[in-house]
Amino acid sequence: MERLVECVPNFSEGRKPETIGRLVEAVESVKGAVVLGTHADEDHNRSVITFVADAGAVVEAAVRAVGLAKQLIDLNRHEGQHPRVGATDVLPFVPVRGVTMEDCVQLAHEAGERLWRELGIPVYFYERAALRPDRVNLEDVRRRGFEQLREQIEDPAAGREPDVGEARLHETAGATVVGARPFLVAYNVNLQTGDIGIAKKIARAVRGRDGGLRYLKALGFELASRGVVQVSMNLVDYEKTSVHHAFEAVRREAEREGVEVLASELVGLVPQAALYAAAAHFLKLENYTPDVVLENRIAAALERKRAGREGKI
Amino acid sequence: MERLVECVPNFSEGRKPETIGRLVEAVESVKGAVVLGTHADEDHNRSVITFVADAGAVVEAAVRAVGLAKQLIDLNRHEGQHPRVGATDVLPFVPVRGVTMEDCVQLAHEAGERLWRELGIPVYFYERAALRPDRVNLEDVRRRGFEQLREQIEDPAAGREPDVGEARLHETAGATVVGARPFLVAYNVNLQTGDIGIAKKIARAVRGRDGGLRYLKALGFELASRGVVQVSMNLVDYEKTSVHHAFEAVRREAEREGVEVLASELVGLVPQAALYAAAAHFLKLENYTPDVVLENRIAAALERKRAGREGKI
Repeated sequence: MERLVECVPNFSEGRKPETIGRLVEAVESVKGAVVLGTHADEDHNRSVITFVADAGAVVEAAVRAVGLAKQLIDLNRHEGQHPRVGATDVLPFVPVRGVTMEDCVQLAHEAGERLWRELGIPVYFYERAALRPDRVNLEDVRRRGFEQLREQIEDPAAGREPDVGEARLHETAGATVVGARPFLVAYNVNLQTGDIGIAKKIARAVRGRDGGLRYLKALGFELASRGVVQVSMNLVDYEKTSVHHAFEAVRREAEREGVEVLASELVGLVPQAALYAAAAHFLKLENYTPDVVLENRIAAALERKRAGREGKI
Repeated sequence: MERLVECVPNFSEGRKPETIGRLVEAVESVKGAVVLGTHADEDHNRSVITFVADAGAVVEAAVRAVGLAKQLIDLNRHEGQHPRVGATDVLPFVPVRGVTMEDCVQLAHEAGERLWRELGIPVYFYERAALRPDRVNLEDVRRRGFEQLREQIEDPAAGREPDVGEARLHETAGATVVGARPFLVAYNVNLQTGDIGIAKKIARAVRGRDGGLRYLKALGFELASRGVVQVSMNLVDYEKTSVHHAFEAVRREAEREGVEVLASELVGLVPQAALYAAAAHFLKLENYTPDVVLENRIAAALERKRAGREGKI
């Protein structure tokens, strides 16, 4: 598959494995789509399916899953710790290989149109697919969730009419927030101290919102069972604010606080490019290109030989 | 290709691009074999072709290339800076994916038998394919090269009879040294000093031969055109003595000498695993497995879906 898009639908169901299983099947019923993993949270009553698909198949796979979620999940019966506006709450499209962000914005818009036309679900566009600057951030779109939106959506003064569809939520499926964004890397650094104040201080120092690294979100947490604290981060554009820069920033701040870095951990998936970049950084590699990686060279050589055999130029 | 072997024949011809081109074609004439790159040195009058092939095709590809080299290269007419014993001088087999070192030793032995039976070229086995402990090192097999071997090979007292074939060199093709070894990573670290004595001292401190890191070879060089020096290394088993450990060892020694590390560089190809391991090391990644890499997870998921469709278990 040469044109790969990742899609990460978040559903308002986290307690029924059979529902999640059926949503996975709906995605994989589309040729060219594969599920990489799922995550369910019972407290949040929310689940996430991570799948990739060929650019020509990803919208169909998303629409099938959202359509099934509409049948299986009734938001009026949903309670859980996490703010949400829809049975399918969020639907981001992410470029992985051979597609641009602009391609993914178009896919998001196409998916949004289909959600309204075929399923009667109103749609808000966020992140890079946003049509209005006050809808870029998910939190600004979702605010207090379904119950509040249901009241405000028909009030023109509230300015919460959807980007696609009539200003009325679907009775049971609510609305869906659809967007395009870079690959998200979730990355934590654990510190050798029990003082959560230090973790929060470091998080404030390194995150973009408070003047730190631009594409970095960070919070400080306590890992009570281990007696240590954690700076928990989201790298929202790892090609710009890299994993290794986030690490070095936390390490420097920790040093200033007189605290050791114990370890770091990746949560979920990381693109190989991020690990290659980190290796090249720490090894001070002068000449690194992806072309020096054996496996890349093998793949390129196989493709060259195959293309040569088929007489392509 | 699930069972991949790398093969790196060294030929005693480095000045005629058309010869090297024809040898490349000979390799690629075998289904399942692709050339990753070539390198020719005019001073050494020597070239290296790096190719990979399916385990079931690699010996055939090697034998075809050695057979053509026998026709094209006359060692009696060969002069160059590099010691050699054959038109095809060295023929190592390297496990890359889905094959063990033991598999590659068997492939080396199979190739050696064919070189004698089909081409009349006597063969010495080296590295992991060696049949005698005094033939593990290439230098112990090759010694002063073709001209010296031609005199000594028939003298039982010299102990230089081949492992396969009669104790007589092929008239024009000499002998070939065939073996199996781990993937070799060539890696240099450049230091901010013009003093070659420091580079040599550091090379001695870090290399296995003199008590340093076991699977590391190192030499000190001057990069006169740049006014700096270089510790030039071969990692002969990067999974044991890793790239990042070699880097850290050189950096520590350089610090002791009061010298900065300018940069490092990879020469040729590096397996992705080596870069992942370096990233995991410097980032202190607690939970790194190849499974967290997005591209690995995609490949595994595609394979799972394909296998499921074909009804395999």
